[in-house]
Amino acid sequence: MSLTLYGFDGSTYVRTVKMLLVEKGADFDQVQVNVIKGEPHLPEHLARHPFGKVPVVDHDGFRVLETAAIMAYLDEVLPGPSLTPDNAHDRARNHMAMGLYDSYGYGALVSVFGFHLFPDFIGGQNEDSRRKGIDNSKRVIRELMKIKGDDPFIAGLAPSFSDFYLAPACAYIAMTPDAALVFAVDGFAEWWKRLQALPSFQATIPQ
Amino acid sequence: MSLTLYGFDGSTYVRTVKMLLVEKGADFDQVQVNVIKGEPHLPEHLARHPFGKVPVVDHDGFRVLETAAIMAYLDEVLPGPSLTPDNAHDRARNHMAMGLYDSYGYGALVSVFGFHLFPDFIGGQNEDSRRKGIDNSKRVIRELMKIKGDDPFIAGLAPSFSDFYLAPACAYIAMTPDAALVFAVDGFAEWWKRLQALPSFQATIPQ
Repeated sequence: MSLTLYGFDGSTYVRTVKMLLVEKGADFDQVQVNVIKGEPHLPEHLARHPFGKVPVVDHDGFRVLETAAIMAYLDEVLPGPSLTPDNAHDRARNHMAMGLYDSYGYGALVSVFGFHLFPDFIGGQNEDSRRKGIDNSKRVIRELMKIKGDDPFIAGLAPSFSDFYLAPACAYIAMTPDAALVFAVDGFAEWWKRLQALPSFQATIPQ
Repeated sequence: MSLTLYGFDGSTYVRTVKMLLVEKGADFDQVQVNVIKGEPHLPEHLARHPFGKVPVVDHDGFRVLETAAIMAYLDEVLPGPSLTPDNAHDRARNHMAMGLYDSYGYGALVSVFGFHLFPDFIGGQNEDSRRKGIDNSKRVIRELMKIKGDDPFIAGLAPSFSDFYLAPACAYIAMTPDAALVFAVDGFAEWWKRLQALPSFQATIPQ
């Protein structure tokens, strides 16, 4: 079996996939396609992804693009514990949280942590975009915590993809002075403590 | 069983869900939340979706947001034929195509058909945005047709979610003078003919 992950450790979505790979105990190679240096837009990466995005995964010659597709595929074909919830309601909670994160969460969180940590990457420091980002980040995190309810993880009793979606972006937010504002959502603190304690979170901290 | 679909027939994503409901032979109620009239941003809809989007589905009191989550959930819990491919590779092709459509396809296609059909909805007619939209629409459709390969549908021998994602936006593109440009992609014409012939496509044409 050959498994190659294209994407650099600074990308939150790459870390999402790596958390799953660690949870599965998978062997894989990684090619560090550096987003900050513009490497995803080099011809060799555009041949892998027509819009120059990471992560991309190659599994025995089968190429998978887009994080949600990669997560479902790898969870299914790799041995190790399943990260897919075991009933239809929890699977829907997982998908819903992933969808809300993709549609509204990632962009909002990036506009906050990018402001402080990678301003060039997001086209410079824009105070208005940061403020809107804080509001929308809270709105998404609030919705995800509503989906979680009283369970330990977003889609139930065990970690699933949606937890691995949210955690890497929260790790960047935690490095900024806006963390207290963004994280002031009911239920978040306990979830965040639980996520940071996961071995797959610890093993994927970007260098 | 009670099943309510919130969202108006003009929305391509609402039609995506309706195509699945028709394929499943499901009974459902629909609340026409009109995007063009701004109804998704009324408090009663914001209580259903914090970012004021459609579709939203309520199934026996369980609320599902985001089209990918709705599709997977309904396909699983409703009787009728399965719209989920029966092997891991085809499931990955389906998810990949949905991800590419969500991330790059929808916005590109809307900027083309919106220009001609709903200019107010997309903030007015912008020639540059239309031209970029044509390029990006073709790039996404080309990638989806590569995923399809020689199969009749995007993820294999039978229709799956990804076909129902792409078709409703193509129906709007077909009404514009840019159709010939956008649709000039290898393999598209046969796929599009096949999709338009589906009873679920016919039954969901917006009035």
